[in-house]
Amino acid sequence: MNIVEIINKKRENKKLSKEELAFAFNGYLEESVKDYQMSSLLMAICINGMSDEEIFNLVDIFIKSGDVLDLSEIPGIKVDKHSTGGVGDKVTLIVGPIVASLGVPVPKMSGRGLGHTGGTIDKLESIPGFNVNLEEKEFINQVKKIGLAVTGQTKNLCPMDKVIYALRDVTGTVASIPLIAVSIMSKKIAGGADKILLDVKLGDGALMKTREDAKKLADIMERIGKFYGKEVMCEITDMNTPLGDNIGNALEVMEAMDILKGKECFLRDLCVDEASKMVSMSKGISVYAAKEEVLETLNSGKAYDKFLEFVKYQGGDITKLSVSNHVMDIKSTKKGIISKIKALNFGILSVTLGAGRVNKEDKIDYGVGIVIKKHLNESVNIGDTLCTLYVKDLNININPNDYFEII
Amino acid sequence: MNIVEIINKKRENKKLSKEELAFAFNGYLEESVKDYQMSSLLMAICINGMSDEEIFNLVDIFIKSGDVLDLSEIPGIKVDKHSTGGVGDKVTLIVGPIVASLGVPVPKMSGRGLGHTGGTIDKLESIPGFNVNLEEKEFINQVKKIGLAVTGQTKNLCPMDKVIYALRDVTGTVASIPLIAVSIMSKKIAGGADKILLDVKLGDGALMKTREDAKKLADIMERIGKFYGKEVMCEITDMNTPLGDNIGNALEVMEAMDILKGKECFLRDLCVDEASKMVSMSKGISVYAAKEEVLETLNSGKAYDKFLEFVKYQGGDITKLSVSNHVMDIKSTKKGIISKIKALNFGILSVTLGAGRVNKEDKIDYGVGIVIKKHLNESVNIGDTLCTLYVKDLNININPNDYFEII
Repeated sequence: MNIVEIINKKRENKKLSKEELAFAFNGYLEESVKDYQMSSLLMAICINGMSDEEIFNLVDIFIKSGDVLDLSEIPGIKVDKHSTGGVGDKVTLIVGPIVASLGVPVPKMSGRGLGHTGGTIDKLESIPGFNVNLEEKEFINQVKKIGLAVTGQTKNLCPMDKVIYALRDVTGTVASIPLIAVSIMSKKIAGGADKILLDVKLGDGALMKTREDAKKLADIMERIGKFYGKEVMCEITDMNTPLGDNIGNALEVMEAMDILKGKECFLRDLCVDEASKMVSMSKGISVYAAKEEVLETLNSGKAYDKFLEFVKYQGGDITKLSVSNHVMDIKSTKKGIISKIKALNFGILSVTLGAGRVNKEDKIDYGVGIVIKKHLNESVNIGDTLCTLYVKDLNININPNDYFEII
Repeated sequence: MNIVEIINKKRENKKLSKEELAFAFNGYLEESVKDYQMSSLLMAICINGMSDEEIFNLVDIFIKSGDVLDLSEIPGIKVDKHSTGGVGDKVTLIVGPIVASLGVPVPKMSGRGLGHTGGTIDKLESIPGFNVNLEEKEFINQVKKIGLAVTGQTKNLCPMDKVIYALRDVTGTVASIPLIAVSIMSKKIAGGADKILLDVKLGDGALMKTREDAKKLADIMERIGKFYGKEVMCEITDMNTPLGDNIGNALEVMEAMDILKGKECFLRDLCVDEASKMVSMSKGISVYAAKEEVLETLNSGKAYDKFLEFVKYQGGDITKLSVSNHVMDIKSTKKGIISKIKALNFGILSVTLGAGRVNKEDKIDYGVGIVIKKHLNESVNIGDTLCTLYVKDLNININPNDYFEII
């Protein structure tokens, strides 16, 4: 076999056999296939797509590039949850404690943010002392003991995904439904959960910009799950508007705590919905019945207590969580109704403020971010505060109309 | 500007501006754009294509990456000639002397072979002493003096093409009509001729496998020529069958000499046709009138004398031209009519024998090759010699049915 012939085949929109895919991808991991050859193949895949069979085979190659986590020691049906990423998405921080407080084990591996989307691991690291690098044994023991653990991906879980993702990020080959599905599902399957809830984000601030694409991604991930004998439930949720009011790492942890303590808002409803589905999947009860349990654990404060227990167990000191004390209010220059809050632009702004990374090696400033003060369909007057920025230095100048559409 | 955004744009099948193309390609030449980024962009171009405007702009970027040859010192209308390459293509060695012997100046830059296609420069180097590396001044002076010079591409002519071609060769991005057109036309325009005759090879042994693709390539090259104010004439000729009887460097020089000395065959007819077109373009006379001149100079031996003068002028000693003395006859195992002589397989065989390169740094054995003894539509008996191999060692075993189809 010859890598150039394999690339030519995909360029000509022909299907690759499992042997050809393995030759190319394993060859890349072993460095016999060069990065300029893999990027060319990835681009051909981006444009010409992949058949289901190719996708199933590639998931297998990704999984087998590393270890598969064995969670059989943990009793109960383990449900994992994954979001395709967006702006202000702190759902894991809310749903994890809710579900765990109801006796459903949550062994959760999460990622870091890249580009305009944040990552749960970065958010947790904003809590001083919080350890996001659990050993496999610690991770399993913690779930057995308190029902919830969140850690960064273990070193040898899907190493193929790490190298391919890094290459895609710099070669314009991120936006491929088959490659996104392979990346997510290979990690989820290798992560060892029994069932998986997938939240496909749709809109301006998400990878999937159209409902058609979001549906395609959801469908192929469900088919991959079925092929590998894992029950997968997919939902498609909006990411045109940032999720919740706070964007930025420590600010998002604070908002998660507010919701666990009882704050009513759209984000709370979304979390109740997701948590209900996870409980339903794990306990084999109806989503309706699960929702009653979820509301009870939230209202009773048990979910919030689980959050505090979880943070403490992983070494975090929640009393030391802090945000920047340089604060700037952004005021409206128009009178009218807010018709749009632009998630993508807020995501990019949060990176500019230092809350995210442009390059993998960039350091994050955990205390910076944005708090949105006015919501969709609210009326505003000239001079009203639309949002507050928490910044490193006050030398920043933004045009509110790039972030809020007021009509 | 950002290279990933530029790649994304082409992946989404949007047009790139001249500034974006320049950012990407000049950046690659200056090494700020990485090879894995350029290969991803090249693949997106291969699959999504380019508009005429993008192609014209890219030609300009390629030309301006180096020097443009100034041939104004040479009197007369200079006509360049280019073939897209094939198996056994020694047309330049025949047409150059014919045309030059009729007073039409031929300043010809040629390339080396790669893959299964040969290159004129390698063929000339099979003549002991022949110098293919003329300085620009020598090159121009020689054309002024004897009307014909053939040299390898000068160092600073389209350096962009050199790096892009090398990358395309190893990344499955060769088969792109826009990229082939840009590569050929930028070199031809930078080469400084007034008019250009292009021979697009079509078939099994050529880059263009279908008439539709060959026509597309011819058309876009004519449009590029028009845009840059150069008259371009294109012809599409067959490359399913090797061109002439001999394949291999010294063997091809010998066949070129045979034709210049009067041998009648299909290849001679093709050369008469091409030479007539070049003379017609340069002198502004009809192709019919030009053909009379061409036949006269061939039959009188003047064209052959011009060949000898040209070889001697570039330091070659034609009396020392030699082929391998290990010879093997390949005999037919079937009785019937020859319905196909497979150009691609003969091209690959010639490389296997040592007449071509797999990698750029490979050394060529000038004396090896193939002489085809039986032609299309000829009848053969079992045991008839189909072709003779000139080899380095006799440990070679081929199946004649991989090269000849006999029905």
